[in-house]
Amino acid sequence: MQLTSVRFGAELPAWVTAELDTVDPLLPDAESRMRLVHRLARRNHVEGTGGPFAAAVTDAATGEIISVGVNVVLASGLSSMHAEVVALCLAQAATGSWDLGGAGRPPVELTVNWRPCAMCYGATLWSGVGVLTVAGEGDEIEQLTGFDEGPMRDDWREQLEARGVRVRLDVLRAEAVDTFREYGERADVTVYNGGGRGRSPRSHADREGQ
Amino acid sequence: MQLTSVRFGAELPAWVTAELDTVDPLLPDAESRMRLVHRLARRNHVEGTGGPFAAAVTDAATGEIISVGVNVVLASGLSSMHAEVVALCLAQAATGSWDLGGAGRPPVELTVNWRPCAMCYGATLWSGVGVLTVAGEGDEIEQLTGFDEGPMRDDWREQLEARGVRVRLDVLRAEAVDTFREYGERADVTVYNGGGRGRSPRSHADREGQ
Repeated sequence: MQLTSVRFGAELPAWVTAELDTVDPLLPDAESRMRLVHRLARRNHVEGTGGPFAAAVTDAATGEIISVGVNVVLASGLSSMHAEVVALCLAQAATGSWDLGGAGRPPVELTVNWRPCAMCYGATLWSGVGVLTVAGEGDEIEQLTGFDEGPMRDDWREQLEARGVRVRLDVLRAEAVDTFREYGERADVTVYNGGGRGRSPRSHADREGQ
Repeated sequence: MQLTSVRFGAELPAWVTAELDTVDPLLPDAESRMRLVHRLARRNHVEGTGGPFAAAVTDAATGEIISVGVNVVLASGLSSMHAEVVALCLAQAATGSWDLGGAGRPPVELTVNWRPCAMCYGATLWSGVGVLTVAGEGDEIEQLTGFDEGPMRDDWREQLEARGVRVRLDVLRAEAVDTFREYGERADVTVYNGGGRGRSPRSHADREGQ
């Protein structure tokens, strides 16, 4: 038989490049990295290019930006294209290696505006990042946006630490919640939903993912 | 600042297209679907294009092949490109929708030669597939190949079923184990490893993923 598809890909929305033009290529601390992620997450839903989720991959020490990602599930037509997967793939494309923790490389940090969903949790583990910094964890995200994080382990953080990924929690948490609330209050959002039955974000969270 | 990378992608190795030339486009039952997945998984490590892992997305009822995937982490340079992610992305590219369970679509089945790793577990959940068929679960895969599945929940199957994904276990299990053993006994395999320290597959499984 002949396969219909043998290749696929995804790209950042054009507005991301414009947004980055005004950003310092060195983000010295966790707060400055998270501030960029919050800007991208908010603009992603305002621009209509995806859900209110963004990520950045930086040198953990210097804060040099290696890549950024936003959720492009709708734009790419691919359900795996969450912000973390996009940022990690772009960082690996930029460095030319599937292993961001490779020998001789400085430790790399993934900054995300909430705890990764079940898929992105595993994607983070396989990427080679040395630090995961999140604005927060908890069910505010599901209550405010309707997005499901999927079945996570209660010891998700210990499991990452045991595999050499340092986890930093609660960096600019309130700003993350503000963006989720703003998104949740919108009546006009296109909700991507693994069930595909045009459900509203708040009433049907199953199989969506952040 | 200017981003180094704004797009990324992956494709199937050329040999997969050749392999599919001899395959019936309709695979009527779970065994025939798994037989194809086993062929692709074995050839993927023999060809040196990746680990011994493959997946297929079919119409759950008719068995019409929608896409196939093999692990292309090494070939793509992207740590997320496990067989399931590749097969699901290609199925979504082929159908033009991020939701394989969308309204008016027949239920879709993902067939894999072992229980998905922590990342692919979430990717399966968000894809909209209605059925997940695996050759087996259990730690043979880690013992024989050295690949880590990542932290999974003991109730992984119930969590999928609760979200509308039917799980079918132990289809041609012995053949899967044979391929893992064959791979594990090779002295010449290139092992992709999130630690990137050129470790052997058996001695260091951390952060690899299937």
